[in-house]
Amino acid sequence: LSSTDPLARDADPGQDEGLLSPGTAGTAAESATGDAAVLRALVDAEAALAAAQGAPPAVVAAINTAGAELSVRDVALRARPGGNPVIPLADLLRQGVGSAAGRDAARYVHRGATSQDILDSALMLVAARTLPGVLDDLGRTAAALAALAAAHRDTPMAGRTLTQQAVPTAFGLKAAGWRSLALDARDRLHAVRLPVQLGGAAGTLAALGGGVPGGSGDAGLTLVRAYAGELGLLEPALPWHTLRTPVVDLGAALAFTCGALGKAAADVLTLSRTELGEVAEGSGGGSSAMPHKANPVHATLVAAAAKQAPGLVSVLYGSLVAEDERPAGAWHAEWPALRGLLRLAGGAAAHAAELAEGLRVFPARMAENLRLTGGLVVSERVSATLGKARARELMDLAAERGVSFADAARDEGHGDLVDPAGWLGAAGSLTDRALHRS
Amino acid sequence: LSSTDPLARDADPGQDEGLLSPGTAGTAAESATGDAAVLRALVDAEAALAAAQGAPPAVVAAINTAGAELSVRDVALRARPGGNPVIPLADLLRQGVGSAAGRDAARYVHRGATSQDILDSALMLVAARTLPGVLDDLGRTAAALAALAAAHRDTPMAGRTLTQQAVPTAFGLKAAGWRSLALDARDRLHAVRLPVQLGGAAGTLAALGGGVPGGSGDAGLTLVRAYAGELGLLEPALPWHTLRTPVVDLGAALAFTCGALGKAAADVLTLSRTELGEVAEGSGGGSSAMPHKANPVHATLVAAAAKQAPGLVSVLYGSLVAEDERPAGAWHAEWPALRGLLRLAGGAAAHAAELAEGLRVFPARMAENLRLTGGLVVSERVSATLGKARARELMDLAAERGVSFADAARDEGHGDLVDPAGWLGAAGSLTDRALHRS
Amino acid sequence: LSSTDPLARDADPGQDEGLLSPGTAGTAAESATGDAAVLRALVDAEAALAAAQGAPPAVVAAINTAGAELSVRDVALRARPGGNPVIPLADLLRQGVGSAAGRDAARYVHRGATSQDILDSALMLVAARTLPGVLDDLGRTAAALAALAAAHRDTPMAGRTLTQQAVPTAFGLKAAGWRSLALDARDRLHAVRLPVQLGGAAGTLAALGGGVPGGSGDAGLTLVRAYAGELGLLEPALPWHTLRTPVVDLGAALAFTCGALGKAAADVLTLSRTELGEVAEGSGGGSSAMPHKANPVHATLVAAAAKQAPGLVSVLYGSLVAEDERPAGAWHAEWPALRGLLRLAGGAAAHAAELAEGLRVFPARMAENLRLTGGLVVSERVSATLGKARARELMDLAAERGVSFADAARDEGHGDLVDPAGWLGAAGSLTDRALHRS
Amino acid sequence: LSSTDPLARDADPGQDEGLLSPGTAGTAAESATGDAAVLRALVDAEAALAAAQGAPPAVVAAINTAGAELSVRDVALRARPGGNPVIPLADLLRQGVGSAAGRDAARYVHRGATSQDILDSALMLVAARTLPGVLDDLGRTAAALAALAAAHRDTPMAGRTLTQQAVPTAFGLKAAGWRSLALDARDRLHAVRLPVQLGGAAGTLAALGGGVPGGSGDAGLTLVRAYAGELGLLEPALPWHTLRTPVVDLGAALAFTCGALGKAAADVLTLSRTELGEVAEGSGGGSSAMPHKANPVHATLVAAAAKQAPGLVSVLYGSLVAEDERPAGAWHAEWPALRGLLRLAGGAAAHAAELAEGLRVFPARMAENLRLTGGLVVSERVSATLGKARARELMDLAAERGVSFADAARDEGHGDLVDPAGWLGAAGSLTDRALHRS
Repeated sequence: LSSTDPLARDADPGQDEGLLSPGTAGTAAESATGDAAVLRALVDAEAALAAAQGAPPAVVAAINTAGAELSVRDVALRARPGGNPVIPLADLLRQGVGSAAGRDAARYVHRGATSQDILDSALMLVAARTLPGVLDDLGRTAAALAALAAAHRDTPMAGRTLTQQAVPTAFGLKAAGWRSLALDARDRLHAVRLPVQLGGAAGTLAALGGGVPGGSGDAGLTLVRAYAGELGLLEPALPWHTLRTPVVDLGAALAFTCGALGKAAADVLTLSRTELGEVAEGSGGGSSAMPHKANPVHATLVAAAAKQAPGLVSVLYGSLVAEDERPAGAWHAEWPALRGLLRLAGGAAAHAAELAEGLRVFPARMAENLRLTGGLVVSERVSATLGKARARELMDLAAERGVSFADAARDEGHGDLVDPAGWLGAAGSLTDRALHRS
Repeated sequence: LSSTDPLARDADPGQDEGLLSPGTAGTAAESATGDAAVLRALVDAEAALAAAQGAPPAVVAAINTAGAELSVRDVALRARPGGNPVIPLADLLRQGVGSAAGRDAARYVHRGATSQDILDSALMLVAARTLPGVLDDLGRTAAALAALAAAHRDTPMAGRTLTQQAVPTAFGLKAAGWRSLALDARDRLHAVRLPVQLGGAAGTLAALGGGVPGGSGDAGLTLVRAYAGELGLLEPALPWHTLRTPVVDLGAALAFTCGALGKAAADVLTLSRTELGEVAEGSGGGSSAMPHKANPVHATLVAAAAKQAPGLVSVLYGSLVAEDERPAGAWHAEWPALRGLLRLAGGAAAHAAELAEGLRVFPARMAENLRLTGGLVVSERVSATLGKARARELMDLAAERGVSFADAARDEGHGDLVDPAGWLGAAGSLTDRALHRS
Repeated sequence: LSSTDPLARDADPGQDEGLLSPGTAGTAAESATGDAAVLRALVDAEAALAAAQGAPPAVVAAINTAGAELSVRDVALRARPGGNPVIPLADLLRQGVGSAAGRDAARYVHRGATSQDILDSALMLVAARTLPGVLDDLGRTAAALAALAAAHRDTPMAGRTLTQQAVPTAFGLKAAGWRSLALDARDRLHAVRLPVQLGGAAGTLAALGGGVPGGSGDAGLTLVRAYAGELGLLEPALPWHTLRTPVVDLGAALAFTCGALGKAAADVLTLSRTELGEVAEGSGGGSSAMPHKANPVHATLVAAAAKQAPGLVSVLYGSLVAEDERPAGAWHAEWPALRGLLRLAGGAAAHAAELAEGLRVFPARMAENLRLTGGLVVSERVSATLGKARARELMDLAAERGVSFADAARDEGHGDLVDPAGWLGAAGSLTDRALHRS
Repeated sequence: LSSTDPLARDADPGQDEGLLSPGTAGTAAESATGDAAVLRALVDAEAALAAAQGAPPAVVAAINTAGAELSVRDVALRARPGGNPVIPLADLLRQGVGSAAGRDAARYVHRGATSQDILDSALMLVAARTLPGVLDDLGRTAAALAALAAAHRDTPMAGRTLTQQAVPTAFGLKAAGWRSLALDARDRLHAVRLPVQLGGAAGTLAALGGGVPGGSGDAGLTLVRAYAGELGLLEPALPWHTLRTPVVDLGAALAFTCGALGKAAADVLTLSRTELGEVAEGSGGGSSAMPHKANPVHATLVAAAAKQAPGLVSVLYGSLVAEDERPAGAWHAEWPALRGLLRLAGGAAAHAAELAEGLRVFPARMAENLRLTGGLVVSERVSATLGKARARELMDLAAERGVSFADAARDEGHGDLVDPAGWLGAAGSLTDRALHRS
C-alpha cells in the first residue's frame, strides 16, 4: 500500500478535477472558472490589448491561435520563477505570433502592459462569463420558491426559535423569506461592476500612450476605453492595481450568495430531519452504508459552501491592504480565493435551484408537529386574547386534570383560540408583499 | 505579585474601557457604540414601539425615565439566563413604568414583541447614530487627500512593485488613489439601508396586530411602518429576524472601510521608513524606550483595524445561516462582531483623518530615492523610445565603464530620456480625473 | 427619541460591561481579562522587572501602590498618541514612584524595557490567571459527561447522519465523545507554554544588561530568567517580540476549546428540539414573548462562542507575519483577539459545565424516536445478517402489505433482528475505553 | 473574443493545473495532494479495510487494480448525487473486483464501512504522504538559516520598530529568529497524530464486527487496529467522525507553518526594498514590463500563502461543530480547506528553502543604513551610559552646530559610544543559544 506502488497513477498528479468538491463538480461555474477558462481569458485580454492598440486583425488572430495552442500546465510551471502566469504567457505568445506572423507582429504582444493588467482583466472576464449562469440559477431558485410560497401561503407550521416550537407561522412565509434572500443575492451580483485593469508597470500608463514625451497623456486614457470596449468590461476611473474595490465587491456579493442560500439549506436540513419530516428533497442522495436513507444532499452541499465562503472572503478583505504599486503577496492571495468564491456561489446556486424545484412539502406532518405541544404553541394567542392571568389559569387547569393545554382550553369554551391556523398573523399579507418583488 | 494582592482593584474587573484598543479609545464611534449607548437604543426601541402602538406620551416618557435609571451591568448580568438583554430589560421597564404610571401603563411595555425586535432595531439605531461620525471622518480624510493630490500632482516618486523600484509615478496619483478608496468606503456606507425589525415571536406579527381574529393582518404591517417612523429607520419588506441582509450589508461596508483605509496606511508605513523618508505623520508617536523615535502611530492603528476586520466580518457572513425563526447562536454571535466593526471603522476613519490632515511630504527625498537605481527606474522609457536592443546596449556600456545607466545614457546623448519627471505618463490626467469625483 | 435626549446617560459611554456578551458576562474569565485585570498585570510586570533588576522592596511596593491608584480610562486615553498603554503607564508609574520614594527610586521603573516587554508579559500573565478557571470548568464538564456516559452506556438512541436516522447508537457513546473533546481541549490548554517577553527596544537586551560595554551579554540573559521567576512565567529561549508562537499556540488552544464544546452544544440543540425531545437543559431560559418556552440557553451561548472563535483566531494566525523588530499593526491587532478568545473559551467552558451538570436525558423519547422509521433504522443489521437481497425482499413485502419493515420482519420470523438495542455494536466497549482516559 | 469562440479549448475546462497557484505549482505537496493522489489514497483505504477483514491477497490486489483503472473525473462527477466520492468509488470497485475476481471477492469491498471511514482515512493518508516533504523543506530552510545566523552572528544592522530605525541588532539574531519559527513549525507538524477513522454508519462499528449478535463488540475494536496497521496510521481511541480533533490539529500546524515562514518572508521583502538593499534573493524573478527588476518572488509566494492560510484554518475551526453522527456540510467543507492548507504549507516550505539557501546578505548596506540617523540609532546607549540629561544635551548641541548626533558625541569625547557594533547587547549570545536547538 505504499505510495510508490507500481500501480500508482502516471497521470500528472497535481491536477484537480473536482474529486473533493461535489458541490461544484460538473457545474457551469466550475468549467467557467477552470484553468482552461482562465487561460482563455488571459489570451483574450492580450488579444484585446493588441486590438485596442491598433494591431491588424491578422495579428489579433495570431495571438488567439497561439494562445489556443498553449498547455495550461506548461504555463503554470513556467509561472513559478516570476510568480505569475502572465510573464511566461507573454513570452510564449510573442514566440507563437513571431513564428506565425513575423517579428513586427510579435511586437504587438503585451505592448506596454504589466502582468497585472492582463491577469486582473482576465479574472474580471472570467467573472463576467461565470455570473450569468449563477444569476440564471438564482432566478430558477427564486421562481421555484415563489411557487412554493404561493402554494403554501396559508399552510400552518410551527415557528421555531432557539430550536423550540414558539408560535405558528406559515410555510409560505418561510419560502418567501428564502426567496427574498435569493433576490438579495441576485441584486448584489447584478450590481457588481467589472472593469478592465490597465495601467502599465506602475499604473501611470506611461508605456501605454500616457507617457509620450510632449504628449498629453490622453492617449493612455483613450486606450483604456478601447481595451474595455474590446473585452466588454467597464472602463475604470483609475487603474485599480492596488485599489481593490472591484475584487472585494465581487467577492462580497459571492460570499453573500453562499450565505443567503445557506439559510434556506439550513432550514431544509432541519425540516427534513426524520423526526420533523415536513419537507424532503425531490430525490435524496444515497448512502454507501444504509439502503433506506434519502439524504438531503443538495442542502448539504449548499451548507458546505456557506461554511467555506466566509474564510475565503476574509482573504479578499485582507488583500485590500495592497501596498505600493503592486503588493508582494496580497495580490497573489486573491486569485484562488476569488475563483473559489465564484465556484462556491455557482455551485450553491445550481444546487439551490435543484433543491427548490424538487422540494416536497408535507402539510400533514406540519399539522401533526403543531399538535406536539398540546396547544402551548398558541399560548401566546390565549394570553393576548384572554390575558396572561387567564392563560396561566388554563395551564394550571391542564396540569391539574392531566390534559393538554388545548384540551383544557376547549373544555373552558376557548376551543377557537387553540387552532394554529387562526394565529398566523400577517403571514399571508407578508408573503403577498414579498412575492410582489420581482 | 499575586492576583489576590491586597492592592488588587476593587472595581468591577469585567468592564472594558479601551485599554487594549488605542485605535478606538476616545473616538466618537467608541462612545456611540458603548454599552450605555446600546442600552439607550434598546430603551429607545421599547419606547418607540409603545408610541407606535398608541401609548400616551406620559407612558412613553415613563419608559424613557425608567430606562435612564437602569444599570448597564445589572441588565448584563440578568441577561445570562435567557441569553439576551431584552428579557430583563422588558421586565425592568415594566416594573419601572408600573411603579411610576400604574399597571395599565406597564402593559404597553414590549407589547407583542420578541427580544429580537428590540435588539435588532436597537443595533440598527446604534449604527444610524455611529455612521454620521464615520462619514464625517471619511470626508475629512478625502478632503485632505484631495489637497495632497492636487499639491503633488506632478511630484515624481518611485513606483514600486513587489518592493522594488519599477518606474516613476507621482505622489499626487498615489494620494488620489487613497482618496478614491476613502470615497468608495463613503459610498458603500451611504448605501447601507438600516431598517427596523418587527415581527413578534416568529415573525408573523401575530401578536402585533397581525393576528387579530377576523382582522386582515394589515394592522401589523401598519405598526411596522409607524415603528420605523418613530425610530427614523427604514420599513423593511419582511421581518428580517432570520434574513440577515441588513447586518451583512452593514458589516461588509464597515470591513471594506477598514481595508480601504488600510491601503493608505500601508503605504504611509512604507514611505515613512527611515530609509525611504518620503512622508511622515504630522506628529509621530513616542516610544517608551527611544527618545528620538517618531512612530507613524495613526497609520499603525489603521493598519491594526484592517487586520482585525476580516475576521469579524467572516462571523457575519457565517451568521447569514440563521436557521428556523431564530437561530441558536448565529444571532448572538453577530452582536460583538457588528459592534466591533462599527468601532474599528470609526476608529480607522478618525485616525485616517488625522493622518491625512497632518501628513508631511518630502519631494526632495522622493527625488533622491529616484536616483538610487542610477537611471534604471526609467529604463522602460529608454526601451520604449530607443528599442530594447539599444537599451540593453546602454546597460552593457554602463557596466563596462563602471558608470550608472543614467550616466551611460547621458554620455550617448540620451540624457533627456533619463529624467524621471519625463516618464510620469498619464499620472497628472488620472489625478485630475480622480479629483473630479465628489 | 433623539440621541441628544436630556435623559441620555452621563456615564462614560465607551465602556463595555457585557451587555452584548451574555455568554461571558459574569464569568470568571470575564473578570480575569477585564481592563482592570490587564492594568493590574501591566503593573505586576513593571514591578517584577524592577524587582528582577534589584530594586529595593520599598521601590517595588511603590510601583504596586502607584499602579493601584491609576485609572484604567485615563491610561487608555493617554495610550492613543503612542498606540499602546505602556508608554503612559511607565510615565505615570515613574511620577507616582518619584513622588512617593524619590527620583532614584523612579529610575527603576521600566528600566531598559520597551513597551512590548511589558504588554506581552502582562497578557501572558492574564492568560495564566484565566486558564485555571477555564480548566476547572472543563474538568467539571468532563466529569458530568463521564457520569452521563456511564449512566447511559447502553441507552439506545438513533444515530443520525446528514440529518436522517441511520442506525442506532447509544447515548453513552455520544456523551463519551463530547467528553473526549472536552479532554482534548483541556490537554491543549494544559500544554500551552506561557513565557515572559523581555528584549528591550529591538530584542537584543542591549539596555537590559546585555549591552554593558565589555560585558558578555549574559547579564541580560540572567535578567530574563529572574523576570520570569518573579512573574511565575516561563523563560523563553529567545525574545519573541516578533516570533509569535506563544500567542498563536494559546489562541489556537482557546479556539479549539470553543469549537470542541460547540460540538456538544450543537448536539444538545438538536436533541432538545421540540420534535426530538431526547434531552433538555436543566433549567431552560425564558422568553420575552412566550411563557411556555424553555430554551436551551447554555447550548446557545456555547454555540455562539464557537461561531466567533474562528474569526478571532484567524487574526492571530495572520499576525504571525510580524515584520521587523516590532510590527506596525500586527501586534496591536492581537490584543483584542487574544482577550476575546480567552473570554469566549472561558464563557463557553462555564456554560458547558452548567449544561453538562444539568442535562436531563429522556430514554423513553429516544426509544420512541427509534420507532419512527418502522424498523428501517436497523435495516443495516437485517442486511448484514440475512444478506442484501433478503433485506430488499422484506422491504418489498412491507410495502406490499402496507406494514412497517419491522412488522414485515417479525412476520417472517426475524423479530430478533429489528430491536435497536441489539445493534449497538461496540458502543459500550468504546464508551468504556473512552472513560478510562483521565 | 467571445467565450464561444471556435478557438475555445476542448479540454475539460473544469480542471485546475496550478495556473493560479504559482506558490504551489510543481511542488511535491501539489502532487502529493492532487486528485490522483487522493483517489489513490481512497483506493488504498478500501484495500486496507478489505485486507484487515481477512480478504485474500488476490482480492486486495484486485481492489488495487480496479482502483488504478478509475478516472478521477468520472468518480468526481458520480459523486454529486450522494455528495461524496466514496459512494461511487465503492460501487465502481465492487464492479471491477466482481468482474475480475467474482461476486464473492466483491463482497469484501467496503464491507461494513461508511463513506466517512474511507474518506477521512484517505485524507490522513494523503497528509502522511505529504508531510515528510514539508518537513524536509523545513529542515533545509532551518539549516540554511542556521548557516546565515552563524555567519552573521556579529553583523550589525538596524533594528526597526513600527518601521523606524530603533537601535542596532545583528543579522545573525534575525536569521536565528526565522530559524526558530521554522523549527516551531517542524515541531508542530511532527507532533501531529494521524489516525485512521473506522466506525461504520454511526460510529458504533456495528457492521464491522462490533455488532455480531452475542459477540462482545471487541472484534470491531480489533479491526480498527488492523486497519490502522495496514495503512501505517494511528489507532484512535474513538471513531472521530464527529470528533474532529485530528483535522484541526493538522490544519492548525499547517496554518502555523505558513504564518511562521511568512514572518521571514515579510522581513526579506522589507530588507530587499530598493532603498534598504540589505538582502536579495539568490535569483530574483523577472518582470513582464521592466527588464532591470529582480523581484523577491520566493518571499512573495510565501507571503501569499501566509495571507491565505488564516481563512482556510478558520473553516476547520468552524467545522469542529459537527452535529449528529455525521454533519450535513461541516464535514464537506473541511476537504478543500485541509487540502489547501497542505498545499500552501508545502509550497511555502519549498519556496522558503529556496529563499534561505539562496539569500544574499549585504553587510555593507546594513552598515550604511545604520549611519542614516547620524547616530540616533544608538542614542539609547548614550542615554544608558551618560544619562538622559547628557544625551539630551548632546542632541541639542548637534542641532545647534548643524552636525549629526554622532559627530556631536565624538566632538565631546564620546565617540566610543556611537559605534552601532558596540550596542548589540546579547545578540550574539542569544544567537548561540538559539543555534543550540536542534
